[in-house]
Amino acid sequence: MRWFLLLAATLAIYSVSGEARSQESTKTMADVIAEASASDWRTPEPVMTLYLTLQGGTVVIELAPEFAPDTVANIQRLVKARYFDGLSINRVQENYVVQLGDPQAEDNAARPHGLADRLEPEFFRPRSGLSFVELASEDPYADTVGFAGGFPMGADTERAWLTHCYAMVGVGRDVPPDSGIGTELYIVTGHAPRHLDRNVTLVGRVLQGMELLTTLPRGTGALGFYEQESERIPIESVRLASEVPRGERVGLRVLRTDTRTFQELIKSRQFRTENWFVDPAGRIGVCNVPIPVSGR
Amino acid sequence: MRWFLLLAATLAIYSVSGEARSQESTKTMADVIAEASASDWRTPEPVMTLYLTLQGGTVVIELAPEFAPDTVANIQRLVKARYFDGLSINRVQENYVVQLGDPQAEDNAARPHGLADRLEPEFFRPRSGLSFVELASEDPYADTVGFAGGFPMGADTERAWLTHCYAMVGVGRDVPPDSGIGTELYIVTGHAPRHLDRNVTLVGRVLQGMELLTTLPRGTGALGFYEQESERIPIESVRLASEVPRGERVGLRVLRTDTRTFQELIKSRQFRTENWFVDPAGRIGVCNVPIPVSGR
Repeated sequence: MRWFLLLAATLAIYSVSGEARSQESTKTMADVIAEASASDWRTPEPVMTLYLTLQGGTVVIELAPEFAPDTVANIQRLVKARYFDGLSINRVQENYVVQLGDPQAEDNAARPHGLADRLEPEFFRPRSGLSFVELASEDPYADTVGFAGGFPMGADTERAWLTHCYAMVGVGRDVPPDSGIGTELYIVTGHAPRHLDRNVTLVGRVLQGMELLTTLPRGTGALGFYEQESERIPIESVRLASEVPRGERVGLRVLRTDTRTFQELIKSRQFRTENWFVDPAGRIGVCNVPIPVSGR
Repeated sequence: MRWFLLLAATLAIYSVSGEARSQESTKTMADVIAEASASDWRTPEPVMTLYLTLQGGTVVIELAPEFAPDTVANIQRLVKARYFDGLSINRVQENYVVQLGDPQAEDNAARPHGLADRLEPEFFRPRSGLSFVELASEDPYADTVGFAGGFPMGADTERAWLTHCYAMVGVGRDVPPDSGIGTELYIVTGHAPRHLDRNVTLVGRVLQGMELLTTLPRGTGALGFYEQESERIPIESVRLASEVPRGERVGLRVLRTDTRTFQELIKSRQFRTENWFVDPAGRIGVCNVPIPVSGR
């Protein structure tokens, strides 16, 4: 077992050329998490938590109503109506996305969803009225980046939007911008495809179970679609946590992103003090900041 | 089949708020690649091409001697001595790296490698003397980013280094910076872990076969190490393409990164003109620029 086994905090002696170093924090992320108090954590609302159950296990998703209230409401309706149960994962594209929904959505055999076929896109929201924490980072895609309510985001002077980082969940759509109603969902599995920001409605983030999606066989069709019906991965069920008896819920807590502790976590990742590092960057990207999840 | 099926070029009408748009390029990446001439492509040198053969197939890696000449030379020596044959993939960490080598490297049972135990680190090289193409991008981690010889890279005023983008290959090391000699290799499989830049020697990039690595079962031990010996993924062989008869080589070509065509490709990804996009970003990150590989 070699490299990266160094999780213990050490009082590092820095010798980095060309970059001013903050000596303030010598904590590792493990330290920061270990020292976090109960109030640094929050429990996602059960009505905003999805359980996507596959044969291999359950993927837990937290929804983001602050950014996509109407689309989230549609998804809640679809889940309550058991729309997704028995549908499938139809697309698994390397270094990109996994996508689920009705493979016959465009045929006469499409499963009825009971919703209007159009929904005003929620690709971004007004920046004003949104409480978020800015991240000091040069970002390739946004004027400003940061975190709101536990989600990574970008902003300009007027708008704010969720960013396509690993594990973010979005709503597939056709060419018309208002054609994504929530019946088709994708999960970002690869390097952040940030060019999708403000082009699709993002609705949440996977809190647990990413490896159930990222290890699926890649589709061999165009864009990673499965070519054979038999390749599709069946969805056993999608439930809101609020629909599940308390004792059967997955007890996850998410580290709050609006706290001093989270700022310490960012610093611990910006200035790596683990013994192994010789050049601790001093910088960070919005999709490189972990938002820790704790629990079973 | 929905969204992203739009590969045809369209003369898009832009209406993007807040961002000046270039109207010069209306090509898609597919167009750019289709129109590339023979001289836009290069064939990696067989002596700089590795075939990593697993039970599931062969991963093709291009080495980067311009950045890590001594480490690359060590790897060539190890391959020629059949050091890697019969060793294994020992670590598969979600959204991070896959790592291969001798699982007993630190035991008495370690396989002898016949090399010096120390090698001067090649975490960066002088910027001067390196021919590279700069990418106009705000980067979270580097003053300057761009491409050299088909690899993504970063630079400051004095130094240049390969960047930890998806599919890049590096050399594992222990705490001493000079302890990475090439016996242990890792491949970046997740969102670019750019905090590793200038902390490890990067030696190349996977050209083909990433999905053979990214779909492997995740290790359940700390840092994604396999806990059971039986979980390790055997390496059948590692060969230089130059060691393989011509007729058995994988015929890959890589799009050159020092051409006008590559600049057009970057632009096609910066300003997405496919019909589906409503807000084509106008920006891009160094790890979001594909470096196309063509061939069987």
